[in-house]
Amino acid sequence: MMLAEIITIGNELLYGRIANQNAQYISTQLTQAGFRVIQITTIPDEIGEIIEALSGAKKRGVEVVITTGGLGPTSDDLTRAAFLKYFNYPSTASNLAWSAIENHLGTAPGICCKQDNQVTIALPGVPAEMQSMLQQRVLPYLKSQFNLPTFYQKTICTIGIVEEELARILTPWEKQLPSHIQLAYLPNLGTVNLTLTTRLTTAEEAKKEIELQVQKVLPLIKDYVYGYEDDKLEEVVGNLLQSQHKSLAIAESCSGGYASQLIVQVPGCSAYYYGGIVAYNNRIKQEVLGVSERTLLQYGAVSQQTAMEMAQQVRIKFKASIGLSSTGIAGPGKAVNEINPVGAVWIGYADEDRCYAKKLQLTTNRLSNIRLTGYNLLDLLRRRLQGIYD
Amino acid sequence: MMLAEIITIGNELLYGRIANQNAQYISTQLTQAGFRVIQITTIPDEIGEIIEALSGAKKRGVEVVITTGGLGPTSDDLTRAAFLKYFNYPSTASNLAWSAIENHLGTAPGICCKQDNQVTIALPGVPAEMQSMLQQRVLPYLKSQFNLPTFYQKTICTIGIVEEELARILTPWEKQLPSHIQLAYLPNLGTVNLTLTTRLTTAEEAKKEIELQVQKVLPLIKDYVYGYEDDKLEEVVGNLLQSQHKSLAIAESCSGGYASQLIVQVPGCSAYYYGGIVAYNNRIKQEVLGVSERTLLQYGAVSQQTAMEMAQQVRIKFKASIGLSSTGIAGPGKAVNEINPVGAVWIGYADEDRCYAKKLQLTTNRLSNIRLTGYNLLDLLRRRLQGIYD
Repeated sequence: MMLAEIITIGNELLYGRIANQNAQYISTQLTQAGFRVIQITTIPDEIGEIIEALSGAKKRGVEVVITTGGLGPTSDDLTRAAFLKYFNYPSTASNLAWSAIENHLGTAPGICCKQDNQVTIALPGVPAEMQSMLQQRVLPYLKSQFNLPTFYQKTICTIGIVEEELARILTPWEKQLPSHIQLAYLPNLGTVNLTLTTRLTTAEEAKKEIELQVQKVLPLIKDYVYGYEDDKLEEVVGNLLQSQHKSLAIAESCSGGYASQLIVQVPGCSAYYYGGIVAYNNRIKQEVLGVSERTLLQYGAVSQQTAMEMAQQVRIKFKASIGLSSTGIAGPGKAVNEINPVGAVWIGYADEDRCYAKKLQLTTNRLSNIRLTGYNLLDLLRRRLQGIYD
Repeated sequence: MMLAEIITIGNELLYGRIANQNAQYISTQLTQAGFRVIQITTIPDEIGEIIEALSGAKKRGVEVVITTGGLGPTSDDLTRAAFLKYFNYPSTASNLAWSAIENHLGTAPGICCKQDNQVTIALPGVPAEMQSMLQQRVLPYLKSQFNLPTFYQKTICTIGIVEEELARILTPWEKQLPSHIQLAYLPNLGTVNLTLTTRLTTAEEAKKEIELQVQKVLPLIKDYVYGYEDDKLEEVVGNLLQSQHKSLAIAESCSGGYASQLIVQVPGCSAYYYGGIVAYNNRIKQEVLGVSERTLLQYGAVSQQTAMEMAQQVRIKFKASIGLSSTGIAGPGKAVNEINPVGAVWIGYADEDRCYAKKLQLTTNRLSNIRLTGYNLLDLLRRRLQGIYD
């Protein structure tokens, strides 16, 4: 297996002031290209440290080293100087191949050195420049230089089920997975991505084996699957609305506009999204949205009845085919009463024929609750549009 | 100066599947405690690699090494085995001090080894466990073991000015900064944080020197400064509204609810925030929000007049003292016309006495435009509440 290392250069990375997103990006790309990344090293802008890191990688015998950072024009940019020193001193001129890598988005070109069987590449630290150069120049070059195994990956995106429960359901299937297929769970804000990865000699074989496993697992979890790879829930829901010729309006209390702006993130959403009302207090729920005073007094703002009336009212007011709503206790303060602790949220759905609401019990973190309510609202809509009923 | 290194252990970090947030967290904490972090190394769960990384840190003569990951109960957790091998083999029992660090949030305890003048600490990879152990046990211990310089840092948060322009204004001031004070710019979504850092022998001296520079720089940039340290714009605006006994409603078109959910992120916002209307199409602007048909026909949806009427209407409809509005071309598609290219946005303000709108020219990225519009709306409000006029 071809081995690779990443060296990220920059004092700001060592102070902890910024996240090392470059390292993550490059390691993902190298892994998908079929390399095995065995080390990521972050060092300061110092010639001695850069040379030591390059020597370490050489000693470990990796085929590819990619560095980022320190290529700019200012006095603290020392990568080029370190490369010149490192490659000239211990090697003869004949086995040193040095070439520049064009940078169409910035001023600092990259460096590519091939020495013996090791390729060492320096890229700038500015993410957009680094990413463009990696995609357009570096990866094609590496693929031409090394005989790489085929990497195949498939991601199944789920929502509405927690990681533990998903793992419990999948145990029998996981146990029969062949050892050359790896499964990873990646939970994030109410969603859990399942990634299946394999490396085999041919692309067809790898794809066939992974797809076979996907077909086996789908029946176990189908109600929770909203997409594949980089699919976003808001795009999936948008496509469903558009293909079914339906329009949407949203009334939000505790989510405060979060669900609405998720929908609006999708280009072309004006075809199905009319807008919404953020009714953050009871007077607005009554006066602007049109929830009856009686409902609010009798059942309270955080109730099934209020959520249903909010969804119905926003639908009528906006002349949309579907209305959604949220009302709950975002926290982090004390619970309003025993029935509604912090994190208790009702989400509502209404169309011409049906109107119902569902209770969620979320977390004690305000920001998480706002976002989770937004995603749960979109998932309520997805399930209805896909004909899935609880 | 006391030197430190961080070693993060875990295959998942090398595949690029997750960001190395632990490294960033620990480097921030060590830097603030007065250490200088000189290397961060990410390696797989392999005994040989762990030992090699520990040896490298030893060779570089650092005072403190902190590792994370690989302490769990499963077969791929090898940090403990690597530590046992590394510390027993080359050293005699007498100069080896090995102790466990309690983990109140999980099952895997940490390890602390003091050998010669180097302290090596292993912490679990689960962020909450690692952070709690670092704060409660590790940092107090390190402070007791080493004579650390005082680190002092002050961050000034600005909005409404781009990094280049800020740098141009600050050049004369930057030139007179003493060499032991470092300045860093950190731009993010319309805001730019300026951080001043120094290390001096006493806390009083460090603080005095930084504050002196802050007082010098503030007059140059005061209209753009919305806060300090971790202040959030939505909190600053919320506090201003509350102290001035004012209430708010927001009408959003192109920002789609983003500004509203920013306001709602602040606990206690119900004291001043009534809610808003997302009017994502012209019919809704007219029928629900009450913008006149004539304004929309004569000037178009993306115009000064429509933005002003939206702000005024949402204010009246919600009986709030202040109304805000946004309307623009979020993109990424083609421009509607020459007057309004992609990224052209009008933001409006209305209260009992005044009503005006301001034009922004943002980017061609839809998501950035939605978010930047939200922050610009909040900044428009901040400037008005602080009595700053363009």
